[in-house]
Amino acid sequence: MGNPKQRRSFWGWGLEADEPTEADRAKLAGTLASRWGVTVDPAPIPSIDDVELRPPRITPPDAIAGCCSTDTHARAMHSYGMAFTDRIRAFNRDFPNPPDLVAYPADEAELAAVLEWCHDAGHRVVPWGGGSSVVYGVNPPEADGVVTIDLDRLDQVLEIDEVSRAARIQAGVLGPALEDQLRPHGYTLRHFPQSFPWSTLGGWIATRSGGHYATNHTHIDDFVESVRMLTPSGWWESRRLPGSGAGPSPDRMVIGSEGTLGIITEAWIRIQARPRFRATAGVTFPSWEAGTDAVRLIAQAKLWPANLRILDPAEAEVAAGLDGTQTLLIIGFESSEVLQGPMIAAAVGVARAAGGVIDDDDVLVSDGGGEATGRGGAVGQWRNSFIAPDLNTSVSLGLVSDTFETSITWDRWPEFDATVRATMRKALDEVCGGGYLSCRFTHVYPDGPAPYYTFSGMGAQGSEMTQWAELKHAAAEAVYEAGGTVTHHHAVGRMHRPQYDRQMPSLFLGAYKAAKAAVDPGGILNPGVLIDP
Amino acid sequence: MGNPKQRRSFWGWGLEADEPTEADRAKLAGTLASRWGVTVDPAPIPSIDDVELRPPRITPPDAIAGCCSTDTHARAMHSYGMAFTDRIRAFNRDFPNPPDLVAYPADEAELAAVLEWCHDAGHRVVPWGGGSSVVYGVNPPEADGVVTIDLDRLDQVLEIDEVSRAARIQAGVLGPALEDQLRPHGYTLRHFPQSFPWSTLGGWIATRSGGHYATNHTHIDDFVESVRMLTPSGWWESRRLPGSGAGPSPDRMVIGSEGTLGIITEAWIRIQARPRFRATAGVTFPSWEAGTDAVRLIAQAKLWPANLRILDPAEAEVAAGLDGTQTLLIIGFESSEVLQGPMIAAAVGVARAAGGVIDDDDVLVSDGGGEATGRGGAVGQWRNSFIAPDLNTSVSLGLVSDTFETSITWDRWPEFDATVRATMRKALDEVCGGGYLSCRFTHVYPDGPAPYYTFSGMGAQGSEMTQWAELKHAAAEAVYEAGGTVTHHHAVGRMHRPQYDRQMPSLFLGAYKAAKAAVDPGGILNPGVLIDP
Repeated sequence: MGNPKQRRSFWGWGLEADEPTEADRAKLAGTLASRWGVTVDPAPIPSIDDVELRPPRITPPDAIAGCCSTDTHARAMHSYGMAFTDRIRAFNRDFPNPPDLVAYPADEAELAAVLEWCHDAGHRVVPWGGGSSVVYGVNPPEADGVVTIDLDRLDQVLEIDEVSRAARIQAGVLGPALEDQLRPHGYTLRHFPQSFPWSTLGGWIATRSGGHYATNHTHIDDFVESVRMLTPSGWWESRRLPGSGAGPSPDRMVIGSEGTLGIITEAWIRIQARPRFRATAGVTFPSWEAGTDAVRLIAQAKLWPANLRILDPAEAEVAAGLDGTQTLLIIGFESSEVLQGPMIAAAVGVARAAGGVIDDDDVLVSDGGGEATGRGGAVGQWRNSFIAPDLNTSVSLGLVSDTFETSITWDRWPEFDATVRATMRKALDEVCGGGYLSCRFTHVYPDGPAPYYTFSGMGAQGSEMTQWAELKHAAAEAVYEAGGTVTHHHAVGRMHRPQYDRQMPSLFLGAYKAAKAAVDPGGILNPGVLIDP
Repeated sequence: MGNPKQRRSFWGWGLEADEPTEADRAKLAGTLASRWGVTVDPAPIPSIDDVELRPPRITPPDAIAGCCSTDTHARAMHSYGMAFTDRIRAFNRDFPNPPDLVAYPADEAELAAVLEWCHDAGHRVVPWGGGSSVVYGVNPPEADGVVTIDLDRLDQVLEIDEVSRAARIQAGVLGPALEDQLRPHGYTLRHFPQSFPWSTLGGWIATRSGGHYATNHTHIDDFVESVRMLTPSGWWESRRLPGSGAGPSPDRMVIGSEGTLGIITEAWIRIQARPRFRATAGVTFPSWEAGTDAVRLIAQAKLWPANLRILDPAEAEVAAGLDGTQTLLIIGFESSEVLQGPMIAAAVGVARAAGGVIDDDDVLVSDGGGEATGRGGAVGQWRNSFIAPDLNTSVSLGLVSDTFETSITWDRWPEFDATVRATMRKALDEVCGGGYLSCRFTHVYPDGPAPYYTFSGMGAQGSEMTQWAELKHAAAEAVYEAGGTVTHHHAVGRMHRPQYDRQMPSLFLGAYKAAKAAVDPGGILNPGVLIDP
């Protein structure tokens, strides 16, 4: 058996159908070679038929064997997440530590039977949603037996409460399937992390996913009304409540637990009417400093725009075709109920007062529910480009690239940005002989931004993983040392442990370890993630 | 020594200067007697000179003796919070279990010395902010030695970061003193729980305090940027961050911990520019149902009004002089930066479409920063009446009154309200031969309201505490059984344990217990609050 849906690529983002062709890769290899003056030799795209895995070391009991797969494709695909090194290793058919089994429970009873077996037998368990972790959150730990539990079959919106605007949703549903089930009723979860097509509700909750929207309620934390989770000690389910001050929030202990406390099976989630009124504006600034200052003032005015994304000159050049000196700020408002023209006018007023430039005609207002008014300006060029570049095509061609994200209070922001940039430029020079570095804000708070950095440089084929490790280390240390959080919405996994362990209050880590031991006394759940086994 | 400030009443809300006179009490006794047809005999107002306490059972070491008080007034005042029964017991000079000592550490070093002594000696510790707990959160536990640690002297705003709009504030500062220190800089915390004059920042954090504002960011949870807390195992301090997705939030484990994990000494808190633009409207509805439905629609339109308070006909009659059939909805907007006229127009539009009545002239808009326009209408009568009645005057006169608060999703709201009202009317009939019951919303979420019920009935002098216990039990059980939270913002303490224990996932309680044991291995901190010792 296995995933009943169209087959996922075992090494890249998306489906097998999304994999590049040899011609795609040859073309990109040529581009990279001429741009960087190096030789690039594309290895052939791997076939699952050429993959050989260590035989499973454990055998499930008959009662659950029907939902467990030892299929090579399933085990290979579940050997890695989507981190830079994950994709290279999988592409290179380097699978030293696959899960022994992949379980696809059809319902909670089957899930409970699988987990009980693992608990009794001491097998380690990796909960799996969409597999989009970029922080080694789903990689099998070193252990004598590892079962990855894929929630893929728990993919239904079970109930919609239209009066309260909330829905009971199974954890294994991928973003698009979730929205497909809400759309006919006129609702949306309105939570669109960049991994949206290949991540699940349960994964969002487990990793404190950040949505696409820039201000106010955008994190999954804000949308959780209650959670149902299976632990090795039994069910953990919170009461469905709009708000409560009864002790520390039990949901807030689950949100961000990254599979270490239990396996989330469903949640009541706040949903929203689909937006009908929209307003958008792209404002340019002569400098990054002026632009980010405008962002601060708009956030502190508490207008709560849906979008408040600023692209530095490097990013604005690549993504929106600006001249490489200008900064671009995208302001967006949307509502299902209320005209948004006055809101964007207020935000644009703040931006202009801070030195921003935009023609009145470039403020797009769609308050009739119909056609937008205004021309669009720079934002028109940028709107449809907010899609990750094709990461699959470049795998193993020597390019070393990644993103990292954080948050920092406004008072420290300028120095923080300067420090991070200087560190990364130096590291790129040393590791790759130069490279590309850019920044945008993904989220903005009244007390600080969440900057998102993208870097890339040309490494040497076959050495990308160590070169990446040097750059990643430089980035994470710079962020930590300059006072940021090691992750704002990419999660901790195992990758960010070196900085996470120092960032957190050590007493909190001790308390969390004790809390985990209370519900997972065997320590079988995702060992090494967040805390040591 | 003792509190260097003007002396607090040892039995009532506020200062000794706020205590009623014998004449005040005689007058109210007469009113109650004639209203209910009973005899009311006011006992004389107690004097601290007539209070005799059990001698302290423990002696502090010399190093900390200077900050410890065995003064009768201090120990009596720290024997109770402000629950209905607390005030009666204190008024009756019934002090069977006072703390042995009250410590007033002058700084963190002194606090650490006191806590270390308690930990080493096994004395139980009650952290004390303003003493406004109405849920037995600060009452000394049964133990061989109890030290109440009053944070009163840690009352400074230490640092203001105007760029990020955040301040580092000591936990022991009372609401007014906090605002006094922010005001000269043009800022406000804008967090005004009803207990504001007699509660502290640390208490707000420890109890997940709810502010006066109705929607969006109003809970203290939303304002905490980082927390510094002393536990018996050492300091717990989180990094100052606008947002973070690095594991479960350490602050969210502290927020709501009610003194069971440690003693909060300071926090970085988000502050705000003082509002300059305001708009207010009082809308009447022919029925409670129509009014609450309008509230739902306004909340779901995500206009985020500062005020969205609805008073049922009983409450609107008492508080705003309406006719006893009409429901009153107060809508308010405010901003430091943005004109609020369009916002109130949108909200009033939704209210009218749902059956609300208001003249255009009764929409008050103060968008020039100067005089308000419009007449005021019903809201004008109500605006200044949102002050707790003088609870001190009625103590021990036989009146049994209290409030309880909860939250519930909108789909269950009508049935929930009917059930709670029926239960309380029956209980009031049985216990007091009838009484008063009313409801307003203190907070509103898109997925449900936070209703706040007030009840009162005439009991028998001397039996008020058992009569109150029957009514409180009926209320808490009704709320729990009908699906609400046993507390939305009054905290759990010891009072709400019977329902809290069933409401919470039992695995969460086990995990929390383990987490507490990790930081407070001796179990000295506030035993009995939230969890069993």
